[in-house]
Amino acid sequence: MRHAPAELAERPADPAPGPLSPELLRRMHGYWRAANYLSVGQIYLRANPLLERPLTIADVKPRLLGHWGTTPGLNLLYVHLNRLIVEHDLNMIAVIGPGHGGPGLVANTWLEGSYTERYPAIERSRNGMERLFRQFSWPGGIPSHVAPETPGSIHEGGELGYSLAHAYGAVFDNPDLIVACVVGDGEAETGALATSWHSNKFLNPARDGAVLPILHLNGFKIANPTILARIGLDELDELMRGYGYDPYLVEGDDPEEVHQLLAATLDTVLAEIRAIQAAARDGSDGGERPRWPMIVLKTPKGWTGPKIVDGKPVEGTWRAHQVPIADFDDPEHLRQLEEWMLSYRPAELFDECGKFRDEYASLAPTGHRRMGSNPHANGGELLVPLSLPDFRDHAVALPGPGQVKAAATAVLGGWLRDVMAYNMDAANFRLFGPDETASNRLQSVYDVTGKAWMAETEAVDENLSRDGRVMEVLSEHLCQGWLEGYLLTGRHGLFSCYEAFVHIVDSMLNQHAKWLKVTRTIPWRKPIASLNYLLTSHVWRQDHNGLSHQDPGFIDHVANKKADVVRIYLPPDANTLLSVASHCLRSRHYVNVIVAGKNPEWQWLGIDEAVRHCTAGAGIWEWASDAGEPDVVMACAGDVPTLETMAAVMLLREFVPDIRIRVVNVVDLMVLQPQSEHPHGLDERAFDALFTTDKPVIFAFHGYPSLVHKLTYRRTNHANIHVRGYKEEGTTTTPFDMVVLNDLDRYRLALDAIERIPRLRDRVTAETDRYWAMMERHKLYIAEHGDDLPEIRDWQWKR
Amino acid sequence: MRHAPAELAERPADPAPGPLSPELLRRMHGYWRAANYLSVGQIYLRANPLLERPLTIADVKPRLLGHWGTTPGLNLLYVHLNRLIVEHDLNMIAVIGPGHGGPGLVANTWLEGSYTERYPAIERSRNGMERLFRQFSWPGGIPSHVAPETPGSIHEGGELGYSLAHAYGAVFDNPDLIVACVVGDGEAETGALATSWHSNKFLNPARDGAVLPILHLNGFKIANPTILARIGLDELDELMRGYGYDPYLVEGDDPEEVHQLLAATLDTVLAEIRAIQAAARDGSDGGERPRWPMIVLKTPKGWTGPKIVDGKPVEGTWRAHQVPIADFDDPEHLRQLEEWMLSYRPAELFDECGKFRDEYASLAPTGHRRMGSNPHANGGELLVPLSLPDFRDHAVALPGPGQVKAAATAVLGGWLRDVMAYNMDAANFRLFGPDETASNRLQSVYDVTGKAWMAETEAVDENLSRDGRVMEVLSEHLCQGWLEGYLLTGRHGLFSCYEAFVHIVDSMLNQHAKWLKVTRTIPWRKPIASLNYLLTSHVWRQDHNGLSHQDPGFIDHVANKKADVVRIYLPPDANTLLSVASHCLRSRHYVNVIVAGKNPEWQWLGIDEAVRHCTAGAGIWEWASDAGEPDVVMACAGDVPTLETMAAVMLLREFVPDIRIRVVNVVDLMVLQPQSEHPHGLDERAFDALFTTDKPVIFAFHGYPSLVHKLTYRRTNHANIHVRGYKEEGTTTTPFDMVVLNDLDRYRLALDAIERIPRLRDRVTAETDRYWAMMERHKLYIAEHGDDLPEIRDWQWKR
Repeated sequence: MRHAPAELAERPADPAPGPLSPELLRRMHGYWRAANYLSVGQIYLRANPLLERPLTIADVKPRLLGHWGTTPGLNLLYVHLNRLIVEHDLNMIAVIGPGHGGPGLVANTWLEGSYTERYPAIERSRNGMERLFRQFSWPGGIPSHVAPETPGSIHEGGELGYSLAHAYGAVFDNPDLIVACVVGDGEAETGALATSWHSNKFLNPARDGAVLPILHLNGFKIANPTILARIGLDELDELMRGYGYDPYLVEGDDPEEVHQLLAATLDTVLAEIRAIQAAARDGSDGGERPRWPMIVLKTPKGWTGPKIVDGKPVEGTWRAHQVPIADFDDPEHLRQLEEWMLSYRPAELFDECGKFRDEYASLAPTGHRRMGSNPHANGGELLVPLSLPDFRDHAVALPGPGQVKAAATAVLGGWLRDVMAYNMDAANFRLFGPDETASNRLQSVYDVTGKAWMAETEAVDENLSRDGRVMEVLSEHLCQGWLEGYLLTGRHGLFSCYEAFVHIVDSMLNQHAKWLKVTRTIPWRKPIASLNYLLTSHVWRQDHNGLSHQDPGFIDHVANKKADVVRIYLPPDANTLLSVASHCLRSRHYVNVIVAGKNPEWQWLGIDEAVRHCTAGAGIWEWASDAGEPDVVMACAGDVPTLETMAAVMLLREFVPDIRIRVVNVVDLMVLQPQSEHPHGLDERAFDALFTTDKPVIFAFHGYPSLVHKLTYRRTNHANIHVRGYKEEGTTTTPFDMVVLNDLDRYRLALDAIERIPRLRDRVTAETDRYWAMMERHKLYIAEHGDDLPEIRDWQWKR
Repeated sequence: MRHAPAELAERPADPAPGPLSPELLRRMHGYWRAANYLSVGQIYLRANPLLERPLTIADVKPRLLGHWGTTPGLNLLYVHLNRLIVEHDLNMIAVIGPGHGGPGLVANTWLEGSYTERYPAIERSRNGMERLFRQFSWPGGIPSHVAPETPGSIHEGGELGYSLAHAYGAVFDNPDLIVACVVGDGEAETGALATSWHSNKFLNPARDGAVLPILHLNGFKIANPTILARIGLDELDELMRGYGYDPYLVEGDDPEEVHQLLAATLDTVLAEIRAIQAAARDGSDGGERPRWPMIVLKTPKGWTGPKIVDGKPVEGTWRAHQVPIADFDDPEHLRQLEEWMLSYRPAELFDECGKFRDEYASLAPTGHRRMGSNPHANGGELLVPLSLPDFRDHAVALPGPGQVKAAATAVLGGWLRDVMAYNMDAANFRLFGPDETASNRLQSVYDVTGKAWMAETEAVDENLSRDGRVMEVLSEHLCQGWLEGYLLTGRHGLFSCYEAFVHIVDSMLNQHAKWLKVTRTIPWRKPIASLNYLLTSHVWRQDHNGLSHQDPGFIDHVANKKADVVRIYLPPDANTLLSVASHCLRSRHYVNVIVAGKNPEWQWLGIDEAVRHCTAGAGIWEWASDAGEPDVVMACAGDVPTLETMAAVMLLREFVPDIRIRVVNVVDLMVLQPQSEHPHGLDERAFDALFTTDKPVIFAFHGYPSLVHKLTYRRTNHANIHVRGYKEEGTTTTPFDMVVLNDLDRYRLALDAIERIPRLRDRVTAETDRYWAMMERHKLYIAEHGDDLPEIRDWQWKR
């Protein structure tokens, strides 16, 4: 690396004194020892926290959990970042990527006082220390990784790969904030992390804060070396420079040298960050993308831990990854653990009451400058509601149901443009999408803002801008990770995505939903803005893109998450989409999934009706229904199923004039569940009032039919609910053929109804024949013309 | 780049003649023009393929689909790779990453004859050409991307990001094979692709074939520039070198120059590949990881297409991404399209019958050397069944049910070791896992093989080897992508993964399942080995890792896929796991998901019973059941639910001695579905024979309860099926507390039974009180001791 291997190799021979005075070095080293001591204590001990008496097996936890390997490096960084914060009065938080690095962060926030402020029972005393040790990885205690419970964290170190995207999301529109993001070299192998480095092409140093990536080159994963630790430092340097960074190497295993080198490097990179920001902010950078600094920290895995256990090397190897000493039936192990802990000289660090001695404690920042107390890491504290324009101003005017066509997402785009404009000064709203904002018809937002872009530009480019508030990159992982980081630090956003490909972030959604669930039970975690998905370019209108683009299963995945966290909306037209979207942007601490099409389609509800309908979540469309008890309930959820249902209703009325039909439309899918399962669930009476207790229900559904069954199997009339939806049939074909292939077409729905109405049984054969004749004509027509029958394309609702 | 910008910049000024003779250059250029002509024809025309008469609007398709932008580059590469194949008699296939590059590959395979051999109706004539044009993106025709229908393809260009992983998977253990992998610069932004470059650390040049990555620096995505095209060539060079490659730049917009440069570069990189392989194979490389060559192809997007349309620049811009000219109501557009197509001078290329003229056609390779006919791209043709050791030799010997403990995956590991050993010479089986093979207790395989590793090694490393057949990398994407590539080229494998984190590849599973579905309907695609997942470290035994590691939803995701493609197995113990695994490794063209624990647990079935049970898919455990009609059916699926069910049965027998219990265990989850929905589904009579038609069923389930309801809602007795499973509750706690938190514990199951047996109603209050007292004791104990009650830990089945 430019600042590295050769240069460094000479350092020990000719050590510069470094920026730390001997006294400061001594105190910082003490602070580090204290953090390491507390980390080991958390992993091992349930009692005797200060080692006031010889360690016995009764002091040791029965189940040893936690990961020592990464911890001393994290502790080292925390102590050094503290110095930087204090000396420069920085507004800084840390995002900790390495898995199970919990003990280090818990130790440090306890040492600085943040932990005890959040958890008063974990006092800064001998008793508190005992509780601190005991709770770690203990039933009902705290997880072994950095978690929602950890003060100062916006990132869970459980599943790996999202740290750097979270860090960038956190600093967007936070010009004063620096996020020190520790990337584990194991984590660095994940796909999400491998592309996250490119986030620097979307960060505007004038408007946004800074991310300082610190690649912790710890060397090993659970059972293997890491790739980045075994490609040589030169190749790693090229990789980081190729990603657009200016890498600084901090390497060593002698604490004193590493302290000085790390301190000097941090001073240098901070100065570089400040220079980049100054140049961008006074305009002297010429609009060039800067080369941001990053640090490669190469220290031994499990540094300061036992060197040899049972005759095998541990420190600096994969054996230090988790618990370096186990099996305390061996008294030698107990002795070794004690020796290890005493090597940190706890009596020097903590007084006899267990209080961290002032000479060290005074090194920490104070108040909100402590990384464990920085409000950016508890975004709900900073959350300012969006200023929302009235969506009614964007309503599609309807002379009546099914009389005009509109593209729902394009209408929404107009409102989102205004949302963007209204909150431009607050700078707390962004749109995210994988190269699809315009494809998803939201391009009106470009009237008021561009797409963030810091890489090179060419004359032909459109709507790119350093100041753009639309985040476009061909990575669902980055869109999701950035948005999560943005929300977790107290801002708002919307992620629009092709429905099929949002599965790419299934696992990220999982982790975010779990974060939301857990933080609902942590009183000091304030609610954040909801994670809002707009899934469009959906299964029914990907006829041209073929089977690979057709998958409505994300809502199934979401429906498995905790009911108090997830909401799923299927607005049937533009006005209902407006109403739902406005609701979602006002909501807090949910995952909201909205599924809506982008193609021009018939509109059903005027804006007042739309609001009423969305508020109810589901309702009878009286204007399409007969009064009183029906022969059949034609239910629908989703825009295309609604269209086919309305067409089916028209067919039925034409051919069975005396039929009594009720049309029920469902916007809020969770109303289908029993109230015991979801707060939006309709009570039994309300559900039965819509779906009857004994009449056939033909339910045309946007997704896989089984989801409706899963939600309704406890309902009175469930046995009569017959669901049509996507059954994994599709290809490159026409829009109408897509519904035909999946038995969701109007003819099939009408036939389904006739088949289930007892008094129409004698008509079934004739209608079935007619159905197959119709299908024959359809197939012939599209094979000949490559498009749908004109009567289908031009179909219009009439009553 | 080392071979690039500066050096290249001088090229035009002093053009070396290049390796192509003027005559060869002329013919290759003609071949390229032909491919481009056919590509444009596919996108636009439904008739008049040779432009024998002036183009009219009736000749143009009503819906214009397909992506022109990437196509001329793909065509150029195909023509040049053909030259290389012919000159060096190469065994080569192409993996085409860019989305919707279908027309180019279809054109080229038609030109070389492969297409017509697979689809005789698409003759190599005027009529065939018309059908070729018409079928493209036409209902019932072929998709616009490279797809299963495309001869020579193992990769679908629909969802983006997996090309390079597929390419590496294809060449593992295929020393003679070279995969030219075209990576789109849009695709390169995805997470999966960004980490796929690191695959070169796992490729052994002595044993494996070679991947030649070709980054197609086309410049634009749908609506944005690409990152890699806008970081400058120097930074891109660093990035590629940092990934361990030796990048060669081929840049230009003058066809003649680019032809010569590309040809020269291909000669060079082939020589490099051969030199690397030779050195590795004769041992002269010293075991060093080589720096493989790769190519950056920088040509204008939509090259040779219209330069200006409606006054706006198109060629070389994002406007060339899809259909550069649309809206043929404008006669100028029609004229422009005709001019564009005629610019390729079709009459020179095709004779009056539409036959590709010999002077060009003769450039293509012949027989299996044609990339469209290479058997590696139709892996089923090459598939050799595994030689499978008898799993009975690995059976756990049981004195009786619940009398011995064993770790199921560890037992499986012993068998897998033998599978590995038996097929060592055939070199057609590998294990894949994200750094978890040992953590998942499969480490016995290291007795016979190591972990593939070509990066640096250190003395402390264990089991790393250039020749290892275990693929470990901390990326689920790479594990999945490599395995898919390995399977698609006719080999076998198993992917073991933490259950929660396999969601990372939900979307990859989708795409592979879709591939399997579609290829079942393509007669020339021969069945390939199944994609086998072993999900372990599962939800119930991630108590120590906490909520972030707990998610059993992958099987829900899989269950949404087409029934003839997916299989889900929940073996309750080691012997059933052996039986299931052996079955899966013999199966073809499925996705098999096996969920099994890694912790030592009680064993239930001797090996003969296990085989019988797995063959049936579900059955009554007679030895735990009372004869005749039961009061209650205690059903279970999954190892931990089975354990809790057995314990509940013991509790019930103790406290309700006259109770009549039937225990039903389900191994093959799909037996629950009606036969109409899944081929494994039990018929109604068989289902009712197990679950009765009217008795309460307490179903303890591994995953989310709703999955059981979704599968069984049409069954006679569904109203009485009461399912307990994971309800998204969990934290860092004890194993037993995990089941308590989710109401799946033995006490809850027993109480569930009592509550549902009418004649026991009067006991419910007392038993409920006892339940809560028990729970109180449990909570107190784990809070005090940090581990489960000894009576829980030591519980053993007795009857």
